[in-house]
Amino acid sequence: MSADPTLQSEEAIIQGFLAPLAAGAPGALGLKDDCATAAPSPGCEFVLKTDAIAEGVHFLATDSPEDIGWKALAVNVSDLAAKGAKPVGYLMSLAFPVSPTRDWMAGFAKGLAGAQQAFGIDLLGGDTDRRPGPISITPTVIGEVVVGRMVRRAAAKSGDFVCVSGSLGDSGLGLRLIRDPSLAAKWNLDSLQADWLRRRYLRPSPRLELREALLRYARASMDISDGLLKDLGRMARASGVGASVDDLELPLSDAFQAVLAADPVAARASLFAGDDYEILTAVPPESAGQFRAQALSAGLEIRAIGTFTVDASVVLRDAQGASIDIAATGWDHF
Amino acid sequence: MSADPTLQSEEAIIQGFLAPLAAGAPGALGLKDDCATAAPSPGCEFVLKTDAIAEGVHFLATDSPEDIGWKALAVNVSDLAAKGAKPVGYLMSLAFPVSPTRDWMAGFAKGLAGAQQAFGIDLLGGDTDRRPGPISITPTVIGEVVVGRMVRRAAAKSGDFVCVSGSLGDSGLGLRLIRDPSLAAKWNLDSLQADWLRRRYLRPSPRLELREALLRYARASMDISDGLLKDLGRMARASGVGASVDDLELPLSDAFQAVLAADPVAARASLFAGDDYEILTAVPPESAGQFRAQALSAGLEIRAIGTFTVDASVVLRDAQGASIDIAATGWDHF
Repeated sequence: MSADPTLQSEEAIIQGFLAPLAAGAPGALGLKDDCATAAPSPGCEFVLKTDAIAEGVHFLATDSPEDIGWKALAVNVSDLAAKGAKPVGYLMSLAFPVSPTRDWMAGFAKGLAGAQQAFGIDLLGGDTDRRPGPISITPTVIGEVVVGRMVRRAAAKSGDFVCVSGSLGDSGLGLRLIRDPSLAAKWNLDSLQADWLRRRYLRPSPRLELREALLRYARASMDISDGLLKDLGRMARASGVGASVDDLELPLSDAFQAVLAADPVAARASLFAGDDYEILTAVPPESAGQFRAQALSAGLEIRAIGTFTVDASVVLRDAQGASIDIAATGWDHF
Repeated sequence: MSADPTLQSEEAIIQGFLAPLAAGAPGALGLKDDCATAAPSPGCEFVLKTDAIAEGVHFLATDSPEDIGWKALAVNVSDLAAKGAKPVGYLMSLAFPVSPTRDWMAGFAKGLAGAQQAFGIDLLGGDTDRRPGPISITPTVIGEVVVGRMVRRAAAKSGDFVCVSGSLGDSGLGLRLIRDPSLAAKWNLDSLQADWLRRRYLRPSPRLELREALLRYARASMDISDGLLKDLGRMARASGVGASVDDLELPLSDAFQAVLAADPVAARASLFAGDDYEILTAVPPESAGQFRAQALSAGLEIRAIGTFTVDASVVLRDAQGASIDIAATGWDHF
């Protein structure tokens, strides 16, 4: 480590920590040009997304830089996964209120490197500024699909099954645990369960393993970033339909169920809190079995939790079929 | 105007002000999906760039929202222009410390719309967050070139002419005038000259008209955003050469020359201050005449201000050929 542990120049950050992340992409030109080049594979088009994360809003000041780097890429790649797109590359704009330390940048770059390897994506270019405010990381991710095959949000039809991957609400509980570690005891969680919940918040896993099944069987798809009910409302509205969801069918992890038994109010409040990064899909009933089977063979459980309806509202139903009040569920990053 | 003049939801901002900017791009899907699609024209590849601008760093809190919208796109498209790329589309991440007013968003969108029309580019997607800190606008712009034809930064050769477009230093003076309007009188500027200098700061014009000439004649190219000497140093270093520039050849506008006569210290301090958004190129001597002629026929003057050298330093020379001290010129956004 140098005598000065902070990085005072953009050049030191780029060439010291970011250029190695661009080594796998010839079009990045070693981050030594003003722009990068990229082209989709023959027969493909690019799928594009940008979603910023900022300290205090999308991650905590106490989160490790490695987790922050991972999350910045993961939340964006999650959108590519939901669209059936294969990740290709990304650009990234960084804003720091004060120069980052070498240790921070090394951890951050390590988190990015791990995510790059996990998602099959390389850094193409970026921009680093110092300005007041929280640390902000703004990736723009690029994926590719066969031309015209991107799985849309607005294509659900009434009668389609509402399907979700994995489990819901873990990340919301994980965030609570990070903020108040004493909750682990209150919730009767063993250390594995508590770790797992925290990790669901800190290290979201884009469901790239679902790509082939989505392209084959899903009519509509999006990732769940702002809570199931809010995002389902968006898909239904965009598609001109409604949805009816059976509360008893919501997929809950073992750890979540443990909290639900010990502290049902906390569990309920976290269930639709967001940051799940699971995939929400509309699947025609005749394809649901095959969709589930192909997902399972890729290692991911899919649950049909309800159906899209002609009636243009989103309703959550209890075991008796009665509507549950879902006011004030989900949240708005804005 | 509604009773509540501020925009409390991301949805109101997107559908009210941003979706119309995406109307020309089918792949934007009306900003109603999670991602956009785009593909380069046959035989082409994409050229990609992201550069954020933030209040207090790259623009002033007192700048009009229309100017801010224009500038956000212009500074990014300027890089595409320097690379010989044709603008295609952009994504944009917005961060607001407080909800913007309808008036502010309307002005900002108007500035973007004007820039879109001027540059031939459409909005493809984006992201809007509320978080502390300055208003920040992070576009990622996409252009296209014939595969392999992007004009590089690192390709200058010793013996090439150092050429620049337009004139230098106006923007630096414009910024001073905006901060202290009394300088117009001190500098003996008429109102047209003062307006013109301010406009050079507020409304940079990417030199897209130079695209064909760059593709045909330039060996290396980049835009001048951080001041001639700093950016020339970058090009020379990346190319493994040096450069010698004749101070007397630097292209100065009429307004700049008026200030130079009235207040040479202020003029000198602004000359390499940055935000010029002119184009810096390395042109083989045998092509320089044709390069200049083609640029002129596109409405843009090109000046050869020196030569790239074997000696790996950047030197500014006075009329007698003596080296001028250029320490502390240019600036680092970081």
